[in-house]
Amino acid sequence: MSRLEEKTLSTEPIFEGKIIKVQVDEVELPDGKRSKREIVKHPGAVAILPITKDGKIVMVEQYRKPLERTLVEIPAGKLEPGEDPEQTAHRELEEETGYVCEKLTHIISFYTSPGFANEIVHLYLAEGLSKKENAKAADEDEFVELMEMTLEEAEQYIKENKIADAKTVYAIQYLKLKKGNRL
Amino acid sequence: MSRLEEKTLSTEPIFEGKIIKVQVDEVELPDGKRSKREIVKHPGAVAILPITKDGKIVMVEQYRKPLERTLVEIPAGKLEPGEDPEQTAHRELEEETGYVCEKLTHIISFYTSPGFANEIVHLYLAEGLSKKENAKAADEDEFVELMEMTLEEAEQYIKENKIADAKTVYAIQYLKLKKGNRL
Repeated sequence: MSRLEEKTLSTEPIFEGKIIKVQVDEVELPDGKRSKREIVKHPGAVAILPITKDGKIVMVEQYRKPLERTLVEIPAGKLEPGEDPEQTAHRELEEETGYVCEKLTHIISFYTSPGFANEIVHLYLAEGLSKKENAKAADEDEFVELMEMTLEEAEQYIKENKIADAKTVYAIQYLKLKKGNRL
Repeated sequence: MSRLEEKTLSTEPIFEGKIIKVQVDEVELPDGKRSKREIVKHPGAVAILPITKDGKIVMVEQYRKPLERTLVEIPAGKLEPGEDPEQTAHRELEEETGYVCEKLTHIISFYTSPGFANEIVHLYLAEGLSKKENAKAADEDEFVELMEMTLEEAEQYIKENKIADAKTVYAIQYLKLKKGNRL
């Protein structure tokens, strides 16, 4: 693999925000030439595919400022420093939906934009849901609307471009495959 | 949908790179309070799922500086200004793999990281592949290794964490569903 490696010659810090850090690395390419890489550092995130006891998917609608529109998505949230992804999944499920789950199963972890960002999303299936009284609230700058829908409704939402993000379209395909495999 | 909208009060430009731009927006939340949003602007990209005449998937291995490792991915590339995504798909397929295709079908478009970036990926299925002599070369700072593999091999690569990015795991699931549907 080292034949493709890019060696870091220097790192220029650009921005350190609440969520992301930005830096420009100067690199030595495999042919000895130099280039620059613009890099966004992200703490990583979890996403949860919560299935209710009657087989519906729990989703949240929220405004996504980078897109200047709302999206319907499966619940998700950033890892806090030192937090285990499973812990984050339980916390975000409760905060965003008011549900707690009996069973959490890791489906897959993937990098969302490996060309410019190191963000990884850990995706979990959450089953055995029940509503919790006095559930923890979401962050004070997070406004979400809860929705529950069937797989068929979710597929319709994709066609209508209301669902349009990588983790959610992956999760819906996963459910479809899972159901198909049961037939 | 406007009940969730976040109004822009001001925009602070942070960085303008070759590929990404970074800005911090101050917003008014639905409850009237204020918050900040860190935003990465990206030109958008295409990804291509190329299937050879004997049913293999064409992939590329490349070094991903943000992750400090290589990934095996389906071919992909950024949209040039004014370029139609289909045009980008044909160009990137040729540049990264040396293949041209007879048939290009849009599968889906999705946002990779809607929480902090506006990047959209347009995913296409490319069929009827043939090798082109004197194919256009990739960008001079791009080094990729070509690979061809079966669906089963691709699934093994996911298990081994060699394939681990959103667009590629989505594309592999899509192929699996597509094959299943044919049975």
